Amino acid sequence: MLNEIPVVLYLYKRLHELGVRGVHGVPGDFNLAALDVLPDAELYWVGNCNELNAAYASDGYARIKGISALITTFGVGELSAVNGVAGAYSEHVPVCHIVGMPNSVSQKSGLLLHHTLGNGDFTVYARMSSFVSETTTTLMDPSKAAEEIDRVLRTCWLRARPIYIGLPTDIAFKKISAEPLNTPLDLSLPPNDPETEAEVVNTIAELMYKSNNTVIISDACAIRHRVLKELHELIDKTMLPTFVSPMGKGSVNETHPAFGGVYAGDVSREDVKQRVESAELILYIGGLKSDFNSGGFTYRVERRNTVEFHSDHMKIRYSTFPGVQMNYVLRRLIDTLDYSRIRTVDTPVMTNNPPQHVRESLSQEITHEYLWPRVGQWLQENDVVITETGTSNFGILEARFPAHVTHISQVLYGSIGYSVGALQGAALACKEKAPERRVILFVGDGSLQLTVQEIATIIRHGLKPIIFVINNNGYTIERMIHGMDASYNDITHWKHTKLLDVFGADPDNSKNFQTRTKTELERLFNDKEFSAAKCIQLVELFMPEKDAPRALVKVGEITAKRNAAVE
Amino acid sequence: MLNEIPVVLYLYKRLHELGVRGVHGVPGDFNLAALDVLPDAELYWVGNCNELNAAYASDGYARIKGISALITTFGVGELSAVNGVAGAYSEHVPVCHIVGMPNSVSQKSGLLLHHTLGNGDFTVYARMSSFVSETTTTLMDPSKAAEEIDRVLRTCWLRARPIYIGLPTDIAFKKISAEPLNTPLDLSLPPNDPETEAEVVNTIAELMYKSNNTVIISDACAIRHRVLKELHELIDKTMLPTFVSPMGKGSVNETHPAFGGVYAGDVSREDVKQRVESAELILYIGGLKSDFNSGGFTYRVERRNTVEFHSDHMKIRYSTFPGVQMNYVLRRLIDTLDYSRIRTVDTPVMTNNPPQHVRESLSQEITHEYLWPRVGQWLQENDVVITETGTSNFGILEARFPAHVTHISQVLYGSIGYSVGALQGAALACKEKAPERRVILFVGDGSLQLTVQEIATIIRHGLKPIIFVINNNGYTIERMIHGMDASYNDITHWKHTKLLDVFGADPDNSKNFQTRTKTELERLFNDKEFSAAKCIQLVELFMPEKDAPRALVKVGEITAKRNAAVE
Repeated sequence: MLNEIPVVLYLYKRLHELGVRGVHGVPGDFNLAALDVLPDAELYWVGNCNELNAAYASDGYARIKGISALITTFGVGELSAVNGVAGAYSEHVPVCHIVGMPNSVSQKSGLLLHHTLGNGDFTVYARMSSFVSETTTTLMDPSKAAEEIDRVLRTCWLRARPIYIGLPTDIAFKKISAEPLNTPLDLSLPPNDPETEAEVVNTIAELMYKSNNTVIISDACAIRHRVLKELHELIDKTMLPTFVSPMGKGSVNETHPAFGGVYAGDVSREDVKQRVESAELILYIGGLKSDFNSGGFTYRVERRNTVEFHSDHMKIRYSTFPGVQMNYVLRRLIDTLDYSRIRTVDTPVMTNNPPQHVRESLSQEITHEYLWPRVGQWLQENDVVITETGTSNFGILEARFPAHVTHISQVLYGSIGYSVGALQGAALACKEKAPERRVILFVGDGSLQLTVQEIATIIRHGLKPIIFVINNNGYTIERMIHGMDASYNDITHWKHTKLLDVFGADPDNSKNFQTRTKTELERLFNDKEFSAAKCIQLVELFMPEKDAPRALVKVGEITAKRNAAVE
Repeated sequence: MLNEIPVVLYLYKRLHELGVRGVHGVPGDFNLAALDVLPDAELYWVGNCNELNAAYASDGYARIKGISALITTFGVGELSAVNGVAGAYSEHVPVCHIVGMPNSVSQKSGLLLHHTLGNGDFTVYARMSSFVSETTTTLMDPSKAAEEIDRVLRTCWLRARPIYIGLPTDIAFKKISAEPLNTPLDLSLPPNDPETEAEVVNTIAELMYKSNNTVIISDACAIRHRVLKELHELIDKTMLPTFVSPMGKGSVNETHPAFGGVYAGDVSREDVKQRVESAELILYIGGLKSDFNSGGFTYRVERRNTVEFHSDHMKIRYSTFPGVQMNYVLRRLIDTLDYSRIRTVDTPVMTNNPPQHVRESLSQEITHEYLWPRVGQWLQENDVVITETGTSNFGILEARFPAHVTHISQVLYGSIGYSVGALQGAALACKEKAPERRVILFVGDGSLQLTVQEIATIIRHGLKPIIFVINNNGYTIERMIHGMDASYNDITHWKHTKLLDVFGADPDNSKNFQTRTKTELERLFNDKEFSAAKCIQLVELFMPEKDAPRALVKVGEITAKRNAAVE
């Protein structure tokens, strides 16, 4: 038949339709033949150094492009990736994980193949992945393959979480009808029950009209479940003071007059804390109240004066509305509000001025109190900023972003090493979609060691990130929690400024810097050539071993107490 | 009470009793306080660069010392390690995986902690690990902790497979009686049913007396389930021709007059194949007939003339004896055989002479046919040789080992990158137990990229391995299976001889070499200083991209066919 294509090509064409171009992963004998087919769907192979890094990269790519694809091989590959996939699950990032499996005949006969556990069980790895996937499928029946592929990809997109596709080597090449491809995947959310939605919207509006002092908090799921357009419109039309959680950072324009700063409970700046906690009504959008995202559970967002907007339910004060999706609620709210009845009071102003004692200090040491506001000044519109779990993702809270900055971090899942892989994926996604965007990483010397080789993939694809390696002699985030001087928080000393060379960077097309003093860092930030980011650049930024951002010190204390807690 | 100690110290003291000293892993906030206690049990912390590498290292360490311990943190750490643990499960290696978990109170209240999936489920990771663990426990009840620890450690040792211990931060420090420590763990296997054992032994003896031509094949589980002493005694007393499978390599003294070579079905040398396949009786000890271990399922070990010795059952021709353990069977067989009635014919002789056309070749290219016999000549007694899944673990089959060489490889599970982590663990184990042993790695440039940073841990602990990096421009094992010229089998070019420097090696106490010609390699092998292995040394060994060991070429063809197979 004319209109027949291999199962794997069907899958790839759907991925292309969703916007995927670069496909991350590592080759293995059960996926090799499938890789041959990528160009037929106008996809290309990234080729990571290992699968965990590939998973992190897929996560970073999806945060820029909306979705991503990761191809690994049976057992050894997929299990190496599983922690990265778990992170995407935890943080609501849609990664399509495709696993090349032994051919269906070998599976049915339970052959003792390499990459197995030696027990003839070919389902065990898929079952392990099911814990960290929104849904899984193993394509054993070509006649159902198209339907299954469409189902899981749609789930991946709509639920914004990883899915798993097992693809046996033989099934990949079975021919199936390409007919369904003529109809694009339906990615629209099912509508809310109209009466419940109307009730929800009216109740919120009435609460807003009654309140003298409403604020908005934007959190992670506002980004992941795609309500930023609605959020921005709501802010513009109401001018309500708007705060972001640590995971919500980057979701709103921080130069907007309504922007008030980062709210993280007791870890917030004092004026922010007071402003949020004295509000009569809080519109809390896409909330994810994890410990590190809520100042160690010190959020004072009480049910009595809060409306929670979620992707699959709403909460208004003490009532829950299961199944009511925030996307439609926000749209209808924006369209029906009587804006003349919205009242508020002033918003605190976030600046990039360091505290006075820092401004007046004569010390040349680069401290966190000095660094992050200075980074805020240096950043440009449209930058993509990636921060590692550690000093950076707490420190960045002290930088006010220019407009249209995307921030990528893993505050909930917090897997160290994530940021280097995510950098590769995000930088590749920008190369595809918006090559003018600078992609900037802040990573500690400890975290870098977990995933360092992905710098080679970055070089291979000609990406041009700026990588700040904070050299503070080990795992500072752990020191803040426990073992300030313990040797297990030390790491080996690497020669960071030789990494690009070792990993194959062209010396004429890569640069290394070391900054040990404020003067050196100022010189670098003022260097237009550096800031233009025309090639890959690595900055080794020396900072004191026991210095940490204010927010990390506080959260560290809270965490240490909880870890030690005895009933 | 006087004789009370924290749960974690109880665990550590048991590990110490089993022979563990260095403990592998990565710090994380849920394990930090537990790390403080290591010295109290005379254990020390290794501190790997990432958890997957730490798991590989634990596997390598256990293969030298009999058992190992790995400490990771909840979620992000344990899942990063899970592929390495799965490899240990698949290959029967006892690794004790200890996971620092949130305190039991937080778990019971389902707090939205960092490192969770955000769903309040604290059991999900342990359930994932249960698929690749012989047994698991989460220590939620201090009153049962000692008993549980003893149970899982005993299982780990006896079943020679990984076990999982979840250790909440608070439970770790609950005091329990140290009393049970006065009695060492009982590591003896339960006895076989005496009548069945007698029947089995007599039947085997009769078969041996009838056979004119018996051979022994030693495979992986002879090593893992600890019957090498019995095996060696059997060989010495019977002088029966003895062969090893790829996974059994290193299990017998290859300079022993009874040693005949490596049997791997159609992939064997012709004389070996004929000798084994014409035997009247085969004593097949610790067999693990996986594809790569059996020449792609071309073993001609037929039930009708084979006795299979396994750790938990025996097979004699067509009968199976469940629960009968080989250890006792071998012992009794050795003690009761009438050796005067054992007859056999000549054994083929394995040498380290390369084939004639290689010996006569004027080419300076370092080919696999040339390399591996030459390696066999260069190796010394007591060496530990580690080969990566790829060209090396097939190539090494062509090297005849000196006596007492240990070979470490992952032929069944085949996770690339394994060898670099395993090198760290094995070298550390040797430092503890037998510092005079050289530890030698053969790894391809492709595989090295997955786990390269563990070289830093090797440097940190002052280990002195010799690392041969085979630079053949990518994933040659994959090329042999599919995609000979495909770009996905290419890798980025690294400057291998700068790696030691970047990772912090002392230039006066580390050496780098490059060998592009046979002459250069000969010079190196003849360099006494080099062979003395007094410091860490890295050799970049250039080989042709499309050259591969004979065995890999054959297995590659068989595997490609199976992957493509359609019913």
